[in-house]
Amino acid sequence: MSILVVGSVAFDNIATPSGKVENALGGAATYFSLAASYFSEVRMVAVVGDDFTAEHENVLKRRGIDTRGIERARGKTFRWGGQYHDNLNEAKTDFTELNVFENFKPQIPDEYQDSNLLFLGNIHPTLQSDVRRKLKKVSLTGGDTMNYWIQRTNTELKETLKLINVLLINDTEAKMLADDASLPRAAQKVLALGPQALVVKHGEYGATIFFREGAFGIGRHPFRAPTLPIEEVKDPTGAGDSFGGGFMGYIASQEEINREVLKRALFYGGVMGSFAVERFGTERLQSLDREEIDARFQIFRELTHLE
Amino acid sequence: MSILVVGSVAFDNIATPSGKVENALGGAATYFSLAASYFSEVRMVAVVGDDFTAEHENVLKRRGIDTRGIERARGKTFRWGGQYHDNLNEAKTDFTELNVFENFKPQIPDEYQDSNLLFLGNIHPTLQSDVRRKLKKVSLTGGDTMNYWIQRTNTELKETLKLINVLLINDTEAKMLADDASLPRAAQKVLALGPQALVVKHGEYGATIFFREGAFGIGRHPFRAPTLPIEEVKDPTGAGDSFGGGFMGYIASQEEINREVLKRALFYGGVMGSFAVERFGTERLQSLDREEIDARFQIFRELTHLE
Repeated sequence: MSILVVGSVAFDNIATPSGKVENALGGAATYFSLAASYFSEVRMVAVVGDDFTAEHENVLKRRGIDTRGIERARGKTFRWGGQYHDNLNEAKTDFTELNVFENFKPQIPDEYQDSNLLFLGNIHPTLQSDVRRKLKKVSLTGGDTMNYWIQRTNTELKETLKLINVLLINDTEAKMLADDASLPRAAQKVLALGPQALVVKHGEYGATIFFREGAFGIGRHPFRAPTLPIEEVKDPTGAGDSFGGGFMGYIASQEEINREVLKRALFYGGVMGSFAVERFGTERLQSLDREEIDARFQIFRELTHLE
Repeated sequence: MSILVVGSVAFDNIATPSGKVENALGGAATYFSLAASYFSEVRMVAVVGDDFTAEHENVLKRRGIDTRGIERARGKTFRWGGQYHDNLNEAKTDFTELNVFENFKPQIPDEYQDSNLLFLGNIHPTLQSDVRRKLKKVSLTGGDTMNYWIQRTNTELKETLKLINVLLINDTEAKMLADDASLPRAAQKVLALGPQALVVKHGEYGATIFFREGAFGIGRHPFRAPTLPIEEVKDPTGAGDSFGGGFMGYIASQEEINREVLKRALFYGGVMGSFAVERFGTERLQSLDREEIDARFQIFRELTHLE
């Protein structure tokens, strides 16, 4: 099955205890697409500026990603600069220049109309809803959001949540969205807003998927996948988006969508996140193969597997 | 097999968003012993004051815990008061009165000399070493420590670590002990100080066990057990100590100590921690049965089990 992803493409300046890079190709849609490209057909909808060259586009094309939905606008591409210190879970933002991303109005090419899965990256919830409504053949919609939208566009976000089947956010966002400090309670409240499943990303501790009663099969309990940084974390940027790409990409590679598939997808999400952080920017995600990915999936599996 | 535990008995004043208790029987050795008592024979070495009554002792005796090693000193028992607000992972201490615990010199009754397993609770590392040296038949020593000892008695602690087979600490303590912000690297450094295995407790995210090369069997990778608060967290006090009791207790219930046993023990640790937090103080740990414990073990197992 094919996935359409809508979200940001950016150039990042990143400094971590292991080094630094400037103008590295990044953005949520980029990390997502590269990670998902190892599992299924990926189509991007995004906006870039004049500084986005054929060389940048080739990074995506080499992975077979359909870039026809990447709009070229006059001006500069979204730019972000940030630093990580000892606590690699927390970025200190140096600057955010939205540039052409500020007026992003996602346009869906006709050729994308038959997309099976949709991933709504972290953009204004009204734009997310618009994109979802334009696509008629989508069987599963995943989505992301962030504190900014939860606080400033709460009403619009709640409308969007009715259109999202699987929401992928982190612990802080889930608790803020539900206004509840207990994660299991917050999860139930978020599910009551619309999604059939909620994936909560715990950073270096993995992720948990909570299901709405009866959604994707039966079972009372949530499911948790671990992650463990086997190698040194060089740059945590994009780990969550790579998680999303692995998660959605794996689902798209399966014939049926049920709980077992979603559970394995949660492991593949962790696997792709763990690769992303091994090198700066998207470098590691550009050069993987499916064999390496499956070998790490086995390691993750053994990490919590009792005989 | 039998476990000897040395550590604190206390009376706690605890306030959480769910309510409060005063003068509740607590202390690390109490939580540990109650949790371990569902798996094996437990013997306590601790000190209490005049305010520790027969009724308090009966809480332990009803669980079959051997209390002959609890010394009665003149004065008051160790007292602690603390509050938890929305973030249940963090206690705000109102007061700490060491009382008789300040001059605690652990005495080992002769009847305890045949103990098979030893757990050195969070006390001065020199006292921990003294206890270990006095016991001749111990086949496995577990131990705990905290920031206070890591900072103030670092040299003594490093001597003690040579005598500990399995160290159980949390993320912050592991990173501080190794002086390394990366957990996998910190774990390797801690293992180089003596222990054959290191259990790092992640609170609501479970725990990871790291093995020294070749220790307890073969295998390159660590192992992670999840935990998930199924019910409301009423009072997180003692969760880590209950984890320790479940972990060591399960090991003591097995004929052989190998990696598979330690992995299952990690799950049982999480199970006992999850029970502890369901009610105030040690209430829930007093009234369990093995069937409930094993049912929750199955839930924890399914929580990360792929078909």
